[in-house]
Amino acid sequence: MAKSQEGFVWSSKDGFRYAAVVASTPKSELSASYDVIVIGAGFAGLTVARDLGFKGKKVLLIEARDRIGGRCWTVDTGETAKLEMGGTWVHWIQPHVFSELQRCDLDEFVETVAFPENCESVKKASRQDPAVVHDPAEGQAMMEQLEGLMAKFFDIDGQGGRSVIPFPFNMASSTNHNPEYLELDKLSIADRVAQMPDCDEEQRAVLGAQAASFYGIAPEKGAFTEVLHTQALCNFDPAMTEIATMKYKIAEGTTAFALAILNDFKGDRIFSSPVQSISQPSDHAPVAVTLKNGEQFTSNSVVSTIPVNVLSSITFNPPLSPLKKEAFSDAVTPARIDKLLVCTPTKFANGFTVSCEGGDMPFASGFLDGTHGSHNLLTLLTHPDNKFDSAEDNIRLVETLHPSGVEVHSVYGHIWSDDPYAGGVMPVRKPGFLGKYHDEIRKPHGNVHFCGSDFADGWRGFISGAFEDAYRVTREVETSLSIK
Amino acid sequence: MAKSQEGFVWSSKDGFRYAAVVASTPKSELSASYDVIVIGAGFAGLTVARDLGFKGKKVLLIEARDRIGGRCWTVDTGETAKLEMGGTWVHWIQPHVFSELQRCDLDEFVETVAFPENCESVKKASRQDPAVVHDPAEGQAMMEQLEGLMAKFFDIDGQGGRSVIPFPFNMASSTNHNPEYLELDKLSIADRVAQMPDCDEEQRAVLGAQAASFYGIAPEKGAFTEVLHTQALCNFDPAMTEIATMKYKIAEGTTAFALAILNDFKGDRIFSSPVQSISQPSDHAPVAVTLKNGEQFTSNSVVSTIPVNVLSSITFNPPLSPLKKEAFSDAVTPARIDKLLVCTPTKFANGFTVSCEGGDMPFASGFLDGTHGSHNLLTLLTHPDNKFDSAEDNIRLVETLHPSGVEVHSVYGHIWSDDPYAGGVMPVRKPGFLGKYHDEIRKPHGNVHFCGSDFADGWRGFISGAFEDAYRVTREVETSLSIK
Repeated sequence: MAKSQEGFVWSSKDGFRYAAVVASTPKSELSASYDVIVIGAGFAGLTVARDLGFKGKKVLLIEARDRIGGRCWTVDTGETAKLEMGGTWVHWIQPHVFSELQRCDLDEFVETVAFPENCESVKKASRQDPAVVHDPAEGQAMMEQLEGLMAKFFDIDGQGGRSVIPFPFNMASSTNHNPEYLELDKLSIADRVAQMPDCDEEQRAVLGAQAASFYGIAPEKGAFTEVLHTQALCNFDPAMTEIATMKYKIAEGTTAFALAILNDFKGDRIFSSPVQSISQPSDHAPVAVTLKNGEQFTSNSVVSTIPVNVLSSITFNPPLSPLKKEAFSDAVTPARIDKLLVCTPTKFANGFTVSCEGGDMPFASGFLDGTHGSHNLLTLLTHPDNKFDSAEDNIRLVETLHPSGVEVHSVYGHIWSDDPYAGGVMPVRKPGFLGKYHDEIRKPHGNVHFCGSDFADGWRGFISGAFEDAYRVTREVETSLSIK
Repeated sequence: MAKSQEGFVWSSKDGFRYAAVVASTPKSELSASYDVIVIGAGFAGLTVARDLGFKGKKVLLIEARDRIGGRCWTVDTGETAKLEMGGTWVHWIQPHVFSELQRCDLDEFVETVAFPENCESVKKASRQDPAVVHDPAEGQAMMEQLEGLMAKFFDIDGQGGRSVIPFPFNMASSTNHNPEYLELDKLSIADRVAQMPDCDEEQRAVLGAQAASFYGIAPEKGAFTEVLHTQALCNFDPAMTEIATMKYKIAEGTTAFALAILNDFKGDRIFSSPVQSISQPSDHAPVAVTLKNGEQFTSNSVVSTIPVNVLSSITFNPPLSPLKKEAFSDAVTPARIDKLLVCTPTKFANGFTVSCEGGDMPFASGFLDGTHGSHNLLTLLTHPDNKFDSAEDNIRLVETLHPSGVEVHSVYGHIWSDDPYAGGVMPVRKPGFLGKYHDEIRKPHGNVHFCGSDFADGWRGFISGAFEDAYRVTREVETSLSIK
């Protein structure tokens, strides 16, 4: 394969240029105590801090990273396009994120089409096997079969699932109307696949993999209702599901969005300050938040927007309830979809998708995802079972993902599953979660309130869910402060 | 027809019990000047006032009525159900209203189904003619034919209209992508009907009436793009359009929602104070707002949320541009859909819809719309050409809307088309509006900013549009104040 000597290969030692690093409040200006300490400067934390600030509360925002945005951030490469290292996709049927975007005048979108018509489809079975172009007719037949299977997979009520989750933004309301929702939540994705009549083993395998692929987990580890819930949010319309979850990116980038929200927050903020422990001697005493560097701040209320995947790394005193601890560890599976953004000068007539079926490949799948300056942008998602690392031989595999080679100009990545402040992507709920843990995880722990997209009812795992839950917890904290 | 002697017939002299009347700031506590004066305490005005207040601006809210909510308010009859006298319908694909509802913890909905399966369908041709039950098979055939006709009506591009309005929340973005959108805007609903091949005259009449019925206008008076825009907001899915525009009401009522937003506004407010004139000697001098009672307040910026239908009743000094004046009068047609809510003990097995075809009836159509305590609730929409008034003989006509009679327990109404602060429902844009007036009406007049659902790009005419436009104008005012 011919290869230019130009360009560079990403190395994990390099940092990126981005706007997400902002200054902390100078130490001399910090207070020892606040009305509220908000831990985490992702979208949920920024929004709670902003809204409680609006309501006259004295707020301190504490962030472990050197930047805002949490599981969303945008790299500015100096080219026209912005590269999203984490959460990316928005749509106007995601109500809160769209509403906040219009509020910030950031509702210009970049459109991409992951699977255009006549798109070239490539498979690569292992590191050694060459990439093989898939027969388009066979691919088309397979897609149609899969669509039919998925429709049956969701059709647990003869109405495509519509009767089970009529109102996907409110668990309590949904389960009150439909006790069968809780029954259904006991099924894993694999359990539901096993229920399907008229399927052979290969079809079952394909269906299970497809249904679970969105979360990057094994089909045994996710509740069937997680998948059904996303369908409900998208009006039980598969075309809408694709458009709502992988078509529109924010033109200015998620970092510009986070900055706009931060701009409305006038309280204190400190960055690069991981929290060690959260202690409250009693319900009526202030809560003490101790940082890893030993510094301590106190407040009447604390809002933790620490992701569920890594919440166990914080010491709580008194300790969390056993049920909460269990919910934050055994009851969920972190989605492990690391994302690699490859800028390539290679041209592909009608787009290009690649899938790597199991084996020893770090990548699971990929698709062309618009352009980046004069280059094409190839988004690769990693294989959940094969831990990805940024070793050069892993990166070099990108060059072998097409029979005629993929020329790599540059590669951008953030290994979320290794990130101590993320621990992967969203926590996927295991079967039985709703009945046992849902209410418990949202309950405050004394004066500590739990918040974030992981806790949302609606677009959980999406930016919109971060806002939804921020609104809930803002109310919770306001009520609790007014009672004191 | 047997008729109980109990019950009462609504008379326009009676008032209603409701929570929407709130106290003004005591006169002694008002200032003579403010950063911003917001005129109108509907959803747009409340939101601008709240958000500018959050940002530390000194705000005065001035309202002509004795209550908040503008074209939305809820009557509390002492029964369990709330009666919505104006804007009613919400859905989660209306992003801003849903987001604000979750923010206020008011996202519990009441579901109604206007056209259930096997619903009894009745026609009444005139005051004298008796109501006649429609043959269900004929009705079904007619509905199917109409659906087919409507699909063709929207299909101006072979894609059901999808290519023309890809992004219904941003006119500028949509027209930049699609100059043909502006071309298409030159058609009236009637023009588009006339373009349809393979239609006989009766079909054209039915189609025109159906397409225009949503707005309560004549098909010649509304732009085709108004109708297409609503389709675009509903993902070009007719079932979604019905669900999004007439299925879910706010369980606590729109007044509870308005109160929740007012509760977050800590500035000054005065009610029952119609504005007479708005004067600004120069761009750099304060704006003077003079009330009908002669009182005057000044501010650096004024936000007018006065509905377009009645904006001409305010004296501007210097006067508005000729183009703006034209836009606020000749370029739009006020939708004249007065709504009458009838509580009836009469039972109907599978629901009941009624249509009154032209002639001398004040009502155009009606449908059973859930229950109200132990009664059924019948919503009647008035005929746009026949001015409705609350004379008893008009109200008594309700009793004749079904062959076996409709027993009337009570009737609630608000005659929006006669209301000096509403002048009807939303202003429907005439053909050619977008190219000629859209930019102009949104431009500030010196330091006076125009705002409200009437000015929104997305859910114009809906509560969601009020929020959308409030966000836009909040930014506009912030920018203008920071430049001064």
